[in-house]
Amino acid sequence: MIGGEPVEAVMVRYGEVFLKSERVKRRFVSAMAENIGLALEAEGFAHRIETYRGRILIYGDDPARIAKTAARVFGVVSASVCTVTTADIEGITTAALKRAERRLRPGMSFAVRARRSGVPGFSSQELAAAVGSAILERFDGVGVDLTHPDYEVSVEAREFGGLVYDEKIPGPGGLPYGTQGEVITLLSAGIDSPVASWLMMRRGCRMLHINMHGGRFGGADVGRKVLQNHARLSSWVPGRALDLLVVDMEPFFEVITALKEPRYRCVLCKRFMLRVAGILAEERGAHAIVTGDNLGQVASQTLANMAVISAATTLPVLRPLIGFDKDEVVGRARSIGTFEANPGEIGCAVAPRYPSTAAPAETIARIEEEIDAVGLAERAAASVRVIRAKNGAVEEAAPTSDDT
Amino acid sequence: MIGGEPVEAVMVRYGEVFLKSERVKRRFVSAMAENIGLALEAEGFAHRIETYRGRILIYGDDPARIAKTAARVFGVVSASVCTVTTADIEGITTAALKRAERRLRPGMSFAVRARRSGVPGFSSQELAAAVGSAILERFDGVGVDLTHPDYEVSVEAREFGGLVYDEKIPGPGGLPYGTQGEVITLLSAGIDSPVASWLMMRRGCRMLHINMHGGRFGGADVGRKVLQNHARLSSWVPGRALDLLVVDMEPFFEVITALKEPRYRCVLCKRFMLRVAGILAEERGAHAIVTGDNLGQVASQTLANMAVISAATTLPVLRPLIGFDKDEVVGRARSIGTFEANPGEIGCAVAPRYPSTAAPAETIARIEEEIDAVGLAERAAASVRVIRAKNGAVEEAAPTSDDT
Repeated sequence: MIGGEPVEAVMVRYGEVFLKSERVKRRFVSAMAENIGLALEAEGFAHRIETYRGRILIYGDDPARIAKTAARVFGVVSASVCTVTTADIEGITTAALKRAERRLRPGMSFAVRARRSGVPGFSSQELAAAVGSAILERFDGVGVDLTHPDYEVSVEAREFGGLVYDEKIPGPGGLPYGTQGEVITLLSAGIDSPVASWLMMRRGCRMLHINMHGGRFGGADVGRKVLQNHARLSSWVPGRALDLLVVDMEPFFEVITALKEPRYRCVLCKRFMLRVAGILAEERGAHAIVTGDNLGQVASQTLANMAVISAATTLPVLRPLIGFDKDEVVGRARSIGTFEANPGEIGCAVAPRYPSTAAPAETIARIEEEIDAVGLAERAAASVRVIRAKNGAVEEAAPTSDDT
Repeated sequence: MIGGEPVEAVMVRYGEVFLKSERVKRRFVSAMAENIGLALEAEGFAHRIETYRGRILIYGDDPARIAKTAARVFGVVSASVCTVTTADIEGITTAALKRAERRLRPGMSFAVRARRSGVPGFSSQELAAAVGSAILERFDGVGVDLTHPDYEVSVEAREFGGLVYDEKIPGPGGLPYGTQGEVITLLSAGIDSPVASWLMMRRGCRMLHINMHGGRFGGADVGRKVLQNHARLSSWVPGRALDLLVVDMEPFFEVITALKEPRYRCVLCKRFMLRVAGILAEERGAHAIVTGDNLGQVASQTLANMAVISAATTLPVLRPLIGFDKDEVVGRARSIGTFEANPGEIGCAVAPRYPSTAAPAETIARIEEEIDAVGLAERAAASVRVIRAKNGAVEEAAPTSDDT
């Protein structure tokens, strides 16, 4: 706005995309604006989005709810309901007084935070001083406290207008969804893998989920919890379809449970999953496989086994949780909304009591040769079923099998 | 203690190791106790360590400083100076009153937090009530507030004695150093790789650092900042030697800067580093290569390039920062103590202006064949120089070359 009446809007702050070159930045900001638009459409908000250097403005009927929706979009550092006014001291001061009126009470301290960018004629200090004096003059019994104010009003003079706001809803940060190419996440009913998927989505990766359906072996079943994880994760990329590829693991489990030696099952199983994920990734142009791998949480999660397992695919295996503590994973799962989906530990019906902690690569290669692991993986990848989720809900009816 | 005079000690809490089996738990607790012992020796504290179910107790002359030292050991959730007394209500109450006397003042609210484990005769509620009443009786003008107390005293009745404390120093958490096998981290002068190394050390991995010395090309030099990062990281595993393998990259840089096509240099360079790291890892029994890789931070950090780069080694490449935002990495670097080592961005003298964002695997393979990348890597790995750090300091004199 360059003149006219002050109007309420939502201001979106983005951070890291500032590190990029001008060309990349433009692409990222436009992707983020598109994603915000999809999120608002999914909620049924009529809106108009304007992108500026360092800020995105959204106009619409219910700024408070629009801000809440925008604050869940990847790439967004924070969203604020704000008054957009003229980029001069007078317009900004008037809007600041109006905002302060709603929340500033006698006995409260306040601070004015000012920014100025591309607007000549006054400094940010002068702007802050002008707004601060106007507030002191208008309101009785209030005082300035710049370090621990009870009330904080922010004012910005920018090329495209003046902005006044006094609340910030924190966003997830990260990079706009879809700017980083596709990856495929091994999604389970557990706590870890949904967090791994979310972290990579937040880093801009287009996501594809894959789940290994245990059939009568259950252990890695596509039950209610997997679908719930899948659906909840889709709520973070509103308006976009998120696909879950369900792979039938039953034939493979039939084969490995018939083997004499049970202790290599976990390594064989994980190698098989990576192999199938690798086939499907290449079919669909995904560049990496994402897992919820930790170190040392279960007996088979050793570095030695990880080396043998990784070698089952030529694609990079991304393990965003590899450096996390369990309580950090749980904290993330709670804030993402996937934690309540998994109240307990999920057992695996195929895992042996004493899995090997250092499966020798040669032994594994020999067993895989014997059972034709490559052929099994190719057939499993060919049998895939797709379950699409969108806006937090699964589009296909849930299967009737159990969760365990 | 089972009787005798109350005594001051340091109590160490550990968390995640409780997830393990009894056998693994014993191994982890004893590794953590050993590491705490090494840390205290490095600081010159005479001490005695006792390990119990769920708690480690340290006796020594300066509990406050011992607690601070113990609170930097991986696996430790928190450390508290505490009074160790008899495991009965009377002994605990007397110790709690004595502790409260030092910090509880008229007008303050307080809360008693009680735990009981393996001690019969009273419940934790009864213990809390007894201590609370005694405090109310002894101190004037104080009141109970269980939700937001000004002062909080914790009391525990355990098989081995009563514990009373009112302060907690948070520890790094994670798993005891050395319980997870060895990994090798590509350490640079930057912000990211030291954080990646620290996170994997915190997850229990024995660490080895490797740095690519650019020689006259400078870009990846083992300058003051690399040594500083290396030394600071060694301060997190006191009493243990941390080795930095310095590889001479100059011959490789000579070759790739002579190539007509500059845009594949970043991919060639990273593949070369992984190749050399892989050779040295296998020589020394390390199971994985750790990098500070992010997504989308620099032009060559694309998923497509990551796939081509990863294929240079058969070892798993662990990228603990792959799901991190830049500000999260910076926050970690600050708390670890490696951030101030790197005030600015570090440029690379060899990187082209426009690096390829999707280097074709076949082109890379052809160039590597032409330049004999395998032979170059083997010679580079053979020329390695070792710089050992211990207790936060480098044991070898720093080289005189520049930092850039």
